[in-house]
Amino acid sequence: MSGDLARRREEHLGSSYRLFYDDPVHVVRGEGVWLYDADGRRYLDAYNNVAGLGHCHPRVVAALAEQAARLNTHTRYLGHEVVDYAERLLGTFPAHLDQVVLTCTGSEANDLAYRVARVATGGTGFVVTEHAYHGVTHAVAGLSPSYGGPDSLGQDVWTVPAPRTAGDAEAFAAAVQAAVDQMRSRSVQPAALLVDSILASDGIYPEALPALEAGAAVMRAAGGLLIVDEVQPGFGRTGRMWHFTRSGLTPDLVSLGKPMGNGHPIAGLVARRDVLDEFGSRQRYFNTFGGNAVSCAVGSAVLDVIEDEGLLERAAARGERLVSGLREVGTRHTAIGEVRGIGLYAAVELRDDHGAPAAELAGRVVNGMRSRGVLLSTAGPSGHVLKLRPPLVSEDEHIDLLLETLDATLDHLRGGPPVGSLS
Amino acid sequence: MSGDLARRREEHLGSSYRLFYDDPVHVVRGEGVWLYDADGRRYLDAYNNVAGLGHCHPRVVAALAEQAARLNTHTRYLGHEVVDYAERLLGTFPAHLDQVVLTCTGSEANDLAYRVARVATGGTGFVVTEHAYHGVTHAVAGLSPSYGGPDSLGQDVWTVPAPRTAGDAEAFAAAVQAAVDQMRSRSVQPAALLVDSILASDGIYPEALPALEAGAAVMRAAGGLLIVDEVQPGFGRTGRMWHFTRSGLTPDLVSLGKPMGNGHPIAGLVARRDVLDEFGSRQRYFNTFGGNAVSCAVGSAVLDVIEDEGLLERAAARGERLVSGLREVGTRHTAIGEVRGIGLYAAVELRDDHGAPAAELAGRVVNGMRSRGVLLSTAGPSGHVLKLRPPLVSEDEHIDLLLETLDATLDHLRGGPPVGSLS
Repeated sequence: MSGDLARRREEHLGSSYRLFYDDPVHVVRGEGVWLYDADGRRYLDAYNNVAGLGHCHPRVVAALAEQAARLNTHTRYLGHEVVDYAERLLGTFPAHLDQVVLTCTGSEANDLAYRVARVATGGTGFVVTEHAYHGVTHAVAGLSPSYGGPDSLGQDVWTVPAPRTAGDAEAFAAAVQAAVDQMRSRSVQPAALLVDSILASDGIYPEALPALEAGAAVMRAAGGLLIVDEVQPGFGRTGRMWHFTRSGLTPDLVSLGKPMGNGHPIAGLVARRDVLDEFGSRQRYFNTFGGNAVSCAVGSAVLDVIEDEGLLERAAARGERLVSGLREVGTRHTAIGEVRGIGLYAAVELRDDHGAPAAELAGRVVNGMRSRGVLLSTAGPSGHVLKLRPPLVSEDEHIDLLLETLDATLDHLRGGPPVGSLS
Repeated sequence: MSGDLARRREEHLGSSYRLFYDDPVHVVRGEGVWLYDADGRRYLDAYNNVAGLGHCHPRVVAALAEQAARLNTHTRYLGHEVVDYAERLLGTFPAHLDQVVLTCTGSEANDLAYRVARVATGGTGFVVTEHAYHGVTHAVAGLSPSYGGPDSLGQDVWTVPAPRTAGDAEAFAAAVQAAVDQMRSRSVQPAALLVDSILASDGIYPEALPALEAGAAVMRAAGGLLIVDEVQPGFGRTGRMWHFTRSGLTPDLVSLGKPMGNGHPIAGLVARRDVLDEFGSRQRYFNTFGGNAVSCAVGSAVLDVIEDEGLLERAAARGERLVSGLREVGTRHTAIGEVRGIGLYAAVELRDDHGAPAAELAGRVVNGMRSRGVLLSTAGPSGHVLKLRPPLVSEDEHIDLLLETLDATLDHLRGGPPVGSLS
């Protein structure tokens, strides 16, 4: 049946759609940390940051159903839903970020950030990291070197190597400065530095925030803005609502998305009032579904659950268990190189016997984990980094199952009993 | 209370958000053809084509709630929801349009069409009508002259006057040919002609389809594609599922949106397989929320309701009552010029005593209708066209209420008893 489904899918959705895993998972139900396939088998979801509160969280589903039965209309009428949500959402940000525009997807949020930065600065030049991913609209695909493809890097877009640690601050600042200098030599005025605060597609570098600060200072001095992309790390995943707040970063614009509605299509752009005013005074922005009453009710329910279930604290605590556990597994497997993580966002570098990135092994680990009932994927320029993002509602037992399964998968791939455990 | 809400809204959402009406409506509930305000007053919704099945349609709400409680995940796993929906949706299109990519908004659908057309043709030149509107991403705003603003018309975008009737075929073909010739003189290769099949923001011209055919033939001969935007007229509003099928138009790409989920954020791009293959073979496209299980369940419920409630036939029948009724009102008011319409999509031109477009009057009519409990808006380059789009589930009595209210509003604005009725 899954084979037939795959054939029908290929027939009607076409080749731009791709599936995860050599043996794709046919999901039929989700509940908490689990996804269930058509044969009733369950999988621990250690990958999808969208369902951050767990699949089909009852409070979010109830808020969705209740509001959809009462009112679902747009922002050209007055409605308390969008205003209540905007106030509440902005309350989780530093005070200088005091306005929000709601969209449906993170791509739309970054696309709007691109437009706002151009209007607010009068510039057109953007700096992004070398393997950045910020979305799929034409403009934002042009800001996403990792997306590749025929209409790759946009005009007036410069790339710089992603910093990996705080120690890269000087090098990152120098790279941004070099990009700005090149822009000017071509009469391009800088508009913004755009960075994912956790540098996910560059390989996940949670400790690089101070380096991002140094690059942002250069861009600001050049008259450009700082756009921080919190689409992946936002809404509590790192043990804080917003990853950038661990640092002294003061973004002008912050894009949000994925876990914002726990699966419902809601996203947004949080902004400094003066920056957005410059745009809004010259340009209306109406997103038909953006900020509709149902999306805002869902967004509010997500904030309720994060607060009431103490998910920031839980993500921080479980994250420590996850990262220390991964390092412990690493002591038994030479294939495991550096382990990085904050909250429930972790990266595991895989390497070959010579210490080189082992992308092919990473692919086999991901598929091996899938066959053992744990879902994850890879990240990074060469695809050798395991990307782990268990739901924020994960319990210790789920973290332990993930760790045990990784251990067993690496054992199996090595074709023998664990060497480390014999010592 | 509404005043306080407006102030809080301005404070947190900023100036890019605009409200309808001099005295904005504070909506708190919707049901069928009605919206209710905070004081319990009801308004006949004769404007919002998103809630085409009526506000909060119980079957759509039930499908949403049921699927959201069972599974809401993305298209990187196998799932029957997206495949079933894709098959069913494609079944409503001519056979040559046999693949679909799902997005969340019409803007995303048109943005993807822009990308696909560029990759499939290798060209970059687009032709749009003079007052077109196709969405709010950077690329699509650049294809939307009516949107205006600081980053208005995009590079390699040519505009042509919108045709108004079948009789404009020759002129429209000549205008497209002139645009193509200009492109070539600047070494720009044509990519596509992009048109809204009902030319909504140009003023609503349902009878211009044969002229669009003539323009499309020119673009095709030049190696470009035809992209038809059905975001506004689609899903039964014109008495057919797709307005372009009244004509011999054979689009390569068709964008869908607004009423697709009766308010839920779902949209898509329907395509000829070979065109999409060219894109998909070179570029993946992953829209996190696009085609998720919940959106597809909602989309299927919308198709169910259109079919089971006979909404195409109903829209056609009520549309005749609406248009003939508007013409009848026109016999009593010299301010009413041309009346155009098909199905439940109608346009009423307002003119002054000299026959010139009367935009200021149109604004007063819209606000006057609002104060009498009927919601509509305006369209067209000078804003003198009343834009009417009652829900597809409207009954005769709702059409009659709309007509009576328009009659009374025009009477009132003229400050006396109806002249026509005295004759």
